[in-house]
Amino acid sequence: MMSDNARLKRQIEFILEIDRLKQVMRQTVITDKSRQENSAEHSWHVALMTIILSEYAKNPQIDVFQVVKMLLVHDIVEIDAGDTFCYDNHARADQHERELMAAKRIFNLLPKDQARQLQALWEEFEARQTLNSRFANALDRLQPLINNYYTDGKAWKKHGVKQHQVVARNCRIEEGSPELWRYASNLIKNAVVQGILPE
Amino acid sequence: MMSDNARLKRQIEFILEIDRLKQVMRQTVITDKSRQENSAEHSWHVALMTIILSEYAKNPQIDVFQVVKMLLVHDIVEIDAGDTFCYDNHARADQHERELMAAKRIFNLLPKDQARQLQALWEEFEARQTLNSRFANALDRLQPLINNYYTDGKAWKKHGVKQHQVVARNCRIEEGSPELWRYASNLIKNAVVQGILPE
Repeated sequence: MMSDNARLKRQIEFILEIDRLKQVMRQTVITDKSRQENSAEHSWHVALMTIILSEYAKNPQIDVFQVVKMLLVHDIVEIDAGDTFCYDNHARADQHERELMAAKRIFNLLPKDQARQLQALWEEFEARQTLNSRFANALDRLQPLINNYYTDGKAWKKHGVKQHQVVARNCRIEEGSPELWRYASNLIKNAVVQGILPE
Repeated sequence: MMSDNARLKRQIEFILEIDRLKQVMRQTVITDKSRQENSAEHSWHVALMTIILSEYAKNPQIDVFQVVKMLLVHDIVEIDAGDTFCYDNHARADQHERELMAAKRIFNLLPKDQARQLQALWEEFEARQTLNSRFANALDRLQPLINNYYTDGKAWKKHGVKQHQVVARNCRIEEGSPELWRYASNLIKNAVVQGILPE
């Protein structure tokens, strides 16, 4: 059994390590258009969105705290694996392998019981098999969609992303929330009408 | 009764507005020392710390989700009121008034029931009267202390902050967690020994 002191030491080491998520940049742009978003602030945004939007979850039996925990943890692997742009199929090829190795290293900084807990949260998020993880994944897609729309499609334009790609990625929102997918698919249609997303 | 559509519209408006917390800069520096931290990523960091460190809460009856919710919401008022440096007594004089006005404006973007919920979370955090809010406040102090220590006291040096000021601010950690205060007060002592915090 680890002494309390050794346990706390490992927990602090993990808390220090995850500070690096603030350096991982995403393609999404923040709403004042001044810069790209990082994965730490993105994680905050989607965690708080969960509390505001949980009423739209496909199934009312959703465990809101479980969704929040998943979203606080879901991008930590990017500290080693980097943020993989969702429309970059080349980078996506070995994404899972890179992220598995990252999870192993980073979560195992923690005491074993907590390493297991965080690994389980991350795996649940990735597998998209539970009600909770489907809603978490829906919000993880909705947030960049909203930011892209309200920054005149800056990230879409930069990477030449087209409507069918945005639909293909975001239609998964429906698995977690048909109502939020209705909202999202209207946003995509409006983006095309406004000329900020090519058909 | 608001139509569902009008309700969702207000919720999205709030979600867009809080994106601006990513532009509010704090005095704390991130661990690679490249730049100051913003309040959105700070909020993510302390929310996740809650999950890792809840075992050290003074009272085991703590509601971990309530603490996480408080910490996700606690800095939103800074979008209007700015981040007030905790060692700047001049700015602190009218801080509460500025933050009250900010809370009124920003939370009221939401439907009434949710505006009330978030206002209550923020007031609970600020009042430091409940077990949950005392633990939330402890983590809100501990995170910048850790970051300051591991960035060689960069923010302390910049503002000429001394040991007695850091102790006076952080001894409140004890109200939420005697064990984390033991850890924190050792960190402060080490910072003095290492010459990164003047006595």
